[in-house]
Amino acid sequence: MNTTLPKDLLSASLAAVRIQRPLVQNITNYVVMNNSANALLAIGASPVMAHWVREMDEMTAIAGALVINLGTLDDGWIEGMLAAGKAARHRGIPIVLDPVGAGATSQRTQAAMKIIDACHPTIIRGNASEIMALVDARIKSKGVDSTASSDDALEAAKRLACTTSSVVVISGATDYITDGTQVHIVTGGSEMMTAVTGMGCTSTAIIGAFSAVVCDPMEAATAAMAVMSWAGERAAAYSKGNGSMQVNFLDELYNLTPDQL
Amino acid sequence: MNTTLPKDLLSASLAAVRIQRPLVQNITNYVVMNNSANALLAIGASPVMAHWVREMDEMTAIAGALVINLGTLDDGWIEGMLAAGKAARHRGIPIVLDPVGAGATSQRTQAAMKIIDACHPTIIRGNASEIMALVDARIKSKGVDSTASSDDALEAAKRLACTTSSVVVISGATDYITDGTQVHIVTGGSEMMTAVTGMGCTSTAIIGAFSAVVCDPMEAATAAMAVMSWAGERAAAYSKGNGSMQVNFLDELYNLTPDQL
Amino acid sequence: MNTTLPKDLLSASLAAVRIQRPLVQNITNYVVMNNSANALLAIGASPVMAHWVREMDEMTAIAGALVINLGTLDDGWIEGMLAAGKAARHRGIPIVLDPVGAGATSQRTQAAMKIIDACHPTIIRGNASEIMALVDARIKSKGVDSTASSDDALEAAKRLACTTSSVVVISGATDYITDGTQVHIVTGGSEMMTAVTGMGCTSTAIIGAFSAVVCDPMEAATAAMAVMSWAGERAAAYSKGNGSMQVNFLDELYNLTPDQL
Repeated sequence: MNTTLPKDLLSASLAAVRIQRPLVQNITNYVVMNNSANALLAIGASPVMAHWVREMDEMTAIAGALVINLGTLDDGWIEGMLAAGKAARHRGIPIVLDPVGAGATSQRTQAAMKIIDACHPTIIRGNASEIMALVDARIKSKGVDSTASSDDALEAAKRLACTTSSVVVISGATDYITDGTQVHIVTGGSEMMTAVTGMGCTSTAIIGAFSAVVCDPMEAATAAMAVMSWAGERAAAYSKGNGSMQVNFLDELYNLTPDQL
Repeated sequence: MNTTLPKDLLSASLAAVRIQRPLVQNITNYVVMNNSANALLAIGASPVMAHWVREMDEMTAIAGALVINLGTLDDGWIEGMLAAGKAARHRGIPIVLDPVGAGATSQRTQAAMKIIDACHPTIIRGNASEIMALVDARIKSKGVDSTASSDDALEAAKRLACTTSSVVVISGATDYITDGTQVHIVTGGSEMMTAVTGMGCTSTAIIGAFSAVVCDPMEAATAAMAVMSWAGERAAAYSKGNGSMQVNFLDELYNLTPDQL
Repeated sequence: MNTTLPKDLLSASLAAVRIQRPLVQNITNYVVMNNSANALLAIGASPVMAHWVREMDEMTAIAGALVINLGTLDDGWIEGMLAAGKAARHRGIPIVLDPVGAGATSQRTQAAMKIIDACHPTIIRGNASEIMALVDARIKSKGVDSTASSDDALEAAKRLACTTSSVVVISGATDYITDGTQVHIVTGGSEMMTAVTGMGCTSTAIIGAFSAVVCDPMEAATAAMAVMSWAGERAAAYSKGNGSMQVNFLDELYNLTPDQL
């Protein structure tokens, strides 16, 4: 793993997560809930998965960060997302948005834009196709997998960052993290990560944990992507397939210490 | 693993999945979503899990196959299933139905029949009890596990295939695949597969992947069941319990090459 | 693992689960569904996960026990929980309640109390914070993780047992099982269990399996917690992180024999 973020900031960020154990509230999809929760526990955070509209205000009030993930969207969940997002915004709690499948259907792209407009996420993380679809609705993606490389999407990411005032993360073979002017880069990881469902969603959850304890969202997002890349690279070295990769990835996150980075 | 399907058709089917990487849309249950998605990725397909009524038309339009699984049913999901099923039927996209728990409650049996009538699935896969319950509503099953052997259900499967014009798959110690006249057989696998939750649902998802790239549904369904049996048999040989079996099964699918079959 | 329950009762309880293979109906949360189902299969039970209001009466009629878990609550699910709980109560089927996140939000605490009042659960299992919040609504918990030790909650557990006539289980470093007067204790397990999401929910599901075949709820709950502790201790000894721990825990449950206890 290589990153443009200074190594001492990286170590300090991970140490902060492990010491502060932030509560990260997730409104995320059914496919990844178990893995996202385990990844948050592995990194030292305390996950809660809750989407019930009635409790969004109280639940958000005790959270250090809010993660909104559009994976398995429907009307009821959008309502919960908007309620939680508005509560988090009102309280100044960082919000991380994962526009899963933006570009796959127009309903999904519109739902993502609606949440962006109403909640002003601190950080938006997607694959290249998703980020491009949020900038240009004519871009189509193939389901939830990207059909473009992260390099192709950097200009779109910068534009999205400028218009939304969010930090935008494109994950891919190279990860780009930008606030519209500055760009951080993370390389490394492993191709095998794309064969594990919800690896992108997991990185969004991990960004949530870092954003709860690191003030600068550029730093928080970059540290999170670096940790993902590091654990992915290590796990892939001894995984036999996507089954063991999913398991080994969690073990690597669990054992990662700040000075190893 | 042994099957009545010629080995060259088997290899060619798997090669087609790996090369074409079909998008398989799944409206499936909460229990198995993660594993079904990982199994589809392992075999080389691109999974999407989506059930939102509003996006079913657009999502189905980009899919190569639609999988409908009744596992954790409720009214909202039935609505999504019907919307997706009708869109798929209209576009000529293959539909694979898994009537999980048919026979456990009358509501479930009726929901399965309603979807069959409205969407005309290309392939129906269930365990013996489920298939028998779709033919004779007096047959009761014990929750989602079968209380009959697949041999007992072959006549019911043939009858169901004739009345619905679907290919019907009964999975069990021996798998039967029938269009009402012709019968393909797959043997092998492992008893340990029954200790992993949702192994049947995973085979339905894998049938979805093959049906997206293989025209003949008898061939697609048989190739999918053969691949399941092959990977299950291999994984069971070195798995210590149902935890490692679930992981090793994915690894075996991931590493399977067309010429190994 | 150590427990105050006589070893022969422990062995006999596990043998009863393995022989009778009870159907355990679960209305549980999205995060743990896969693992809870696999844990129930590993221990020898037959899990069904269903929440659809319309089928709750019929599904409960064939179940040996009902597990209600508030993890990812919303209005629709509460409706299903109440329908299933009332049907189970009417039929005299044991009900096990897991008040996940009671104390995190007032809505959750109130939902738990409503279900207790309407369904009279046989057994209530929670962590220290959750049990204390059910007795004193001023107690707050940090999301779904406990902020108190199980020792702190024993008096609250006894009071809750008295007012509800339920057996109350507090899980933690030491597990307490009480009917308000008698107290059973289970020690052992591993700190690593707290790094695996939904380990508490899994223990609730396992209590469900034992309560279906063991008449005395004190005995059923204690045997279940002992089995959890035993498998957790064994799995932790060779797990490298929370990823492999989740897998190895299932393998240990799967291989556990009555005479090993």
